[in-house]
Amino acid sequence: MTRTASVVGASGFTGGELLRLLDGHPEFEPVQATSRSATRKTVGHVHPNLRHLDLRFSDPGELESVDVLFAATPHGVSMEQIDRFRGAAERVVDLSADFRLPTEAQYDEWYDGHDRPDLLPESEYALPEVNREGVRDATLVASGGCNATAAILALKPLVDAGLVGDERVVVDVKVGSSEGGAGGGDASSHAERSGVVRPYAATGHRHEAEIEEYLGLSVAFTAHAVEMTRGAAATCHAFPDEPVSTGDLWSAYREAYEDEPFVRLVAGGGGVYRYPEPKAVAGSNYAEVGFALDPGNGRVVALSAIDNMMKGSAGQAVHAANLACGFEETAGLDATGFHPVGAP
Amino acid sequence: MTRTASVVGASGFTGGELLRLLDGHPEFEPVQATSRSATRKTVGHVHPNLRHLDLRFSDPGELESVDVLFAATPHGVSMEQIDRFRGAAERVVDLSADFRLPTEAQYDEWYDGHDRPDLLPESEYALPEVNREGVRDATLVASGGCNATAAILALKPLVDAGLVGDERVVVDVKVGSSEGGAGGGDASSHAERSGVVRPYAATGHRHEAEIEEYLGLSVAFTAHAVEMTRGAAATCHAFPDEPVSTGDLWSAYREAYEDEPFVRLVAGGGGVYRYPEPKAVAGSNYAEVGFALDPGNGRVVALSAIDNMMKGSAGQAVHAANLACGFEETAGLDATGFHPVGAP
Amino acid sequence: MTRTASVVGASGFTGGELLRLLDGHPEFEPVQATSRSATRKTVGHVHPNLRHLDLRFSDPGELESVDVLFAATPHGVSMEQIDRFRGAAERVVDLSADFRLPTEAQYDEWYDGHDRPDLLPESEYALPEVNREGVRDATLVASGGCNATAAILALKPLVDAGLVGDERVVVDVKVGSSEGGAGGGDASSHAERSGVVRPYAATGHRHEAEIEEYLGLSVAFTAHAVEMTRGAAATCHAFPDEPVSTGDLWSAYREAYEDEPFVRLVAGGGGVYRYPEPKAVAGSNYAEVGFALDPGNGRVVALSAIDNMMKGSAGQAVHAANLACGFEETAGLDATGFHPVGAP
Amino acid sequence: MTRTASVVGASGFTGGELLRLLDGHPEFEPVQATSRSATRKTVGHVHPNLRHLDLRFSDPGELESVDVLFAATPHGVSMEQIDRFRGAAERVVDLSADFRLPTEAQYDEWYDGHDRPDLLPESEYALPEVNREGVRDATLVASGGCNATAAILALKPLVDAGLVGDERVVVDVKVGSSEGGAGGGDASSHAERSGVVRPYAATGHRHEAEIEEYLGLSVAFTAHAVEMTRGAAATCHAFPDEPVSTGDLWSAYREAYEDEPFVRLVAGGGGVYRYPEPKAVAGSNYAEVGFALDPGNGRVVALSAIDNMMKGSAGQAVHAANLACGFEETAGLDATGFHPVGAP
Repeated sequence: MTRTASVVGASGFTGGELLRLLDGHPEFEPVQATSRSATRKTVGHVHPNLRHLDLRFSDPGELESVDVLFAATPHGVSMEQIDRFRGAAERVVDLSADFRLPTEAQYDEWYDGHDRPDLLPESEYALPEVNREGVRDATLVASGGCNATAAILALKPLVDAGLVGDERVVVDVKVGSSEGGAGGGDASSHAERSGVVRPYAATGHRHEAEIEEYLGLSVAFTAHAVEMTRGAAATCHAFPDEPVSTGDLWSAYREAYEDEPFVRLVAGGGGVYRYPEPKAVAGSNYAEVGFALDPGNGRVVALSAIDNMMKGSAGQAVHAANLACGFEETAGLDATGFHPVGAP
Repeated sequence: MTRTASVVGASGFTGGELLRLLDGHPEFEPVQATSRSATRKTVGHVHPNLRHLDLRFSDPGELESVDVLFAATPHGVSMEQIDRFRGAAERVVDLSADFRLPTEAQYDEWYDGHDRPDLLPESEYALPEVNREGVRDATLVASGGCNATAAILALKPLVDAGLVGDERVVVDVKVGSSEGGAGGGDASSHAERSGVVRPYAATGHRHEAEIEEYLGLSVAFTAHAVEMTRGAAATCHAFPDEPVSTGDLWSAYREAYEDEPFVRLVAGGGGVYRYPEPKAVAGSNYAEVGFALDPGNGRVVALSAIDNMMKGSAGQAVHAANLACGFEETAGLDATGFHPVGAP
Repeated sequence: MTRTASVVGASGFTGGELLRLLDGHPEFEPVQATSRSATRKTVGHVHPNLRHLDLRFSDPGELESVDVLFAATPHGVSMEQIDRFRGAAERVVDLSADFRLPTEAQYDEWYDGHDRPDLLPESEYALPEVNREGVRDATLVASGGCNATAAILALKPLVDAGLVGDERVVVDVKVGSSEGGAGGGDASSHAERSGVVRPYAATGHRHEAEIEEYLGLSVAFTAHAVEMTRGAAATCHAFPDEPVSTGDLWSAYREAYEDEPFVRLVAGGGGVYRYPEPKAVAGSNYAEVGFALDPGNGRVVALSAIDNMMKGSAGQAVHAANLACGFEETAGLDATGFHPVGAP
Repeated sequence: MTRTASVVGASGFTGGELLRLLDGHPEFEPVQATSRSATRKTVGHVHPNLRHLDLRFSDPGELESVDVLFAATPHGVSMEQIDRFRGAAERVVDLSADFRLPTEAQYDEWYDGHDRPDLLPESEYALPEVNREGVRDATLVASGGCNATAAILALKPLVDAGLVGDERVVVDVKVGSSEGGAGGGDASSHAERSGVVRPYAATGHRHEAEIEEYLGLSVAFTAHAVEMTRGAAATCHAFPDEPVSTGDLWSAYREAYEDEPFVRLVAGGGGVYRYPEPKAVAGSNYAEVGFALDPGNGRVVALSAIDNMMKGSAGQAVHAANLACGFEETAGLDATGFHPVGAP
């Protein structure tokens, strides 16, 4: 029996990606797509890939009753609208940062406080790789952020295996322009944004809090905008207290991910694609994770690459919804990616 | 019952795309992938999106017996190897130009002659939109070329409706770098190829013969390399003898394509994506087709956009195989495309 | 003795390019740069390449007295402000379309009419290659548009030599994102604009009027946005009434341009760069012009490529100012371009 | 009196850039350009921006006598040919790594040894910002590498001011495709290289030796290929032992670079371009250098951006030649860069 789903904020990039995934999903049917700016237009008017869909944007003020509501709204909307959302749906999967952190104090430190701290304890963080059991049957899910996903997946095996400890780990991330969402000002115009290597968050990025919370490790985070539309890649530089071997690293990474359906390990070997690359996962829900050992500097370089629209947002949200509803984990998420592909 | 398939020339771009499609196809199982240069390597070594596939390249000299053999080899190989190919498989789908034209004379004029002119009469040209019935149950299929596909789909409604006649029609095509295939010399290195608008075939492109043969119209063809990896777009400039109206054009295009599963019409309206665009179909087997009327110049601008790896080669070949084998036409080809997507 | 210059509308892309050229010019000194949106900010705040310049944007309401005023304002501003501009400077070089066409009737047909039709007869159109003598000592100069420049330069030799006549000529242009100027809406955001082949003006582009006026030939014009920031390339398809030879074409193009300092002919030969390409002229004031003969179709493909920020706007305006002021024509415009260069 | 110059290896990217700079230089005249692969072709055949130059590639076996010889050959050629080079020219500026490190032991560790260790003591390393006096009047100059230049310029002020000490500093570099030079295999084909974030040297890059030698600091280096043709950006993550303030950092960076003609500081402020960016310096010999303070993590993020073809190779070599010959330091190197510019 098909479950109904709605997407609130469906004219944004993430909302469109959710519609695409729900349309192709064996268990879900997208029955509502809300948009303030495009009300009554067809979804294909905004998302040209969905021109075949017979669905029009509706007013976000009038929510239909559905099984799962996906909120793809800007930061701050979900915490304000959460009662309406939960009134309309048994389960809410929120793609914003509004319910990711567990305490009000963290929102006071990293954001502008929180309207509904009472709900934080019941929200389940959905990086399934770190909280799979919590997400099962959850009714309020906070889908993990793209940069946090990339960083956590790269480093988690090192933390789990006790290979990194108190020392500072550097996380140097490179992301595509879809992270900024539809809209955006001068900095996201094509002429200003194309071809950049732009340290748009040299320090102080809010995802640092999310990474530290769910990784259990302090990191020094920097994010760069580079020339791609989809994709995020994390290069993490860790300096273990004790020497480690390549064998130790393979053990740690295999242990962490051998049963994970959406993580694949790529670490060296021959050919063109020897380490994780956003191009290799573009259009898919896969994360590539890998590492390189730098014995001369006592360093482990931990690497990951995702499609930020998929594993970094909409794909991850559907993955979480699959878990919450008791579906096959990979339902609707088995697309493979492309080769070759340009700036994805 | 699953049918077995092999891909000859599977380490090339088109070969990899065939493997991806066959792997996700409900009726086919890819059992052999041959490559001269990568024999015994995993297919994921060359095609990083296929790292999950448990398949290694084998020597093209040892063909397994399969239901369908897809030949993704350079021009000239299929005509030489065709007896081996047909000995190994009940049906052969050739993606090269070797069996596209119906007469030896055309190969003498546009290519370097033909080794097996005896087989040309029995080959079926697979642009399903122009030869659907011929492809059904065919045992030798010649999958249409990318530029020809783009040009034919844009112009066919005008020809069918008698809106263009003897006058010269200009076809100005823009294509991505994957058209050149893997390998390639200086001109396809990133530093020389990126960001170009390069008239790589200002005149005399071989696809002109294919277009004229299956469109039934003489065209003046020019091809430009532009910055994308996948994709081809045709802008066709036609000057009808008699004035036409926008209504005439809508009738012609709807008539031509209303039942076509892989063609969608896009002609004006609002929003960002008002005409066919490669970005809107990247990763899918859709062709977008549309037009604009220029009354002041007595001109019809006929437009189309495809993903050259899909509708322009591998997708079209699988479409043809579906028809030849009696499967659902769209089997394995229902992916939707992405939004947003960069240089696809 | 250095002449003083001001740039009105200096925070736009074209205005910034003018500042760059004037700063490096042996005869001019930029003394004022106006901007409504960035008043009192340094020019380097907006144009990072000009961070070394000790100049701040000033209010466009307070024009200083200078020798030459360059107006880099949107369409409609110059025609309204022209008396103020001419009151502030002996010579005005306008980069908008406001004074390009000679008659009010043309502005009624292609634009929204004209406020100052009395001045149209005294304005000199500055494509120096078609109106060099007119521009000398002119006090009101209308610098030619980028698409018009590309089209006129490609086709003018054919017209001058009488090789094309009454038949319709197709002009298929591909341009970069800087043509849209700073600002711009959804369509120019990086995620929507990157990697496109977008027929943004399939028909009815206003430059058609300018081309026909100064080329003396009726053309059917289409413009596409493609992935580059700077650059415009025109592919023109002409069908001469009488057969022409490659020798005829070389004669026509050499005759037209042998003394032109900013036009170079590129037509065939070996190597990677065999025809005009925007990459080959990026950053320079050169136009590359060339052709290919298509005897089978009775067609001449006339080609050109420019950097739209240089030969298509700011460079052309400085070229015109050099002529108007009696300077060396090439003063301040001798930069060579780069190899390799990405999407320029 | 003009000095004569030759470029050995002039059909490569760096060789072409040298020719461009020497052609526009007030003191130098390029009289010879050698190439094995393009002997007797015009330089414009390979470098389309130089089509106006009346110069043909000659055989590297026949060197003319010149004032300065620039060697733009692959690693290993200069050390073998150095006697011939010095026989032909009073001064040799080598752009390869052959004479950058001071001891044979370093070449044994990082390269495949050295043929002429006797000459290492007399070679002068030309990052003028770290060895200006050494380069003056030198007869054998080793022009610094692009990645090393970016890293050293970003970190040198911290080292000079004693703000970093023994702790490991991470250098995470992003570079364009021209670094790989003309030629290149599968990995540099457009389809495989475009849009990448590829950790091509996760560990063990040879420039690490050069950085440590001339910076006096141990660094952990990683290099990524990203989508641009020209450009290199270094993001360096340092953790000072003692807390530092933004004021300390401004003092250190101003002290280091206030008199440097080719370094400009960019650290915060408003607008789009708040930190060093390759786009902001593309086509120029400028390096942008800046920093951000991360008090929460006790981190300084030191940043730099260069055009690798200019400040990272050919521009730096000409800068060194200017110093060696006693010319104005900035002669021939005063180009400003562009705005906007695409993937440079």
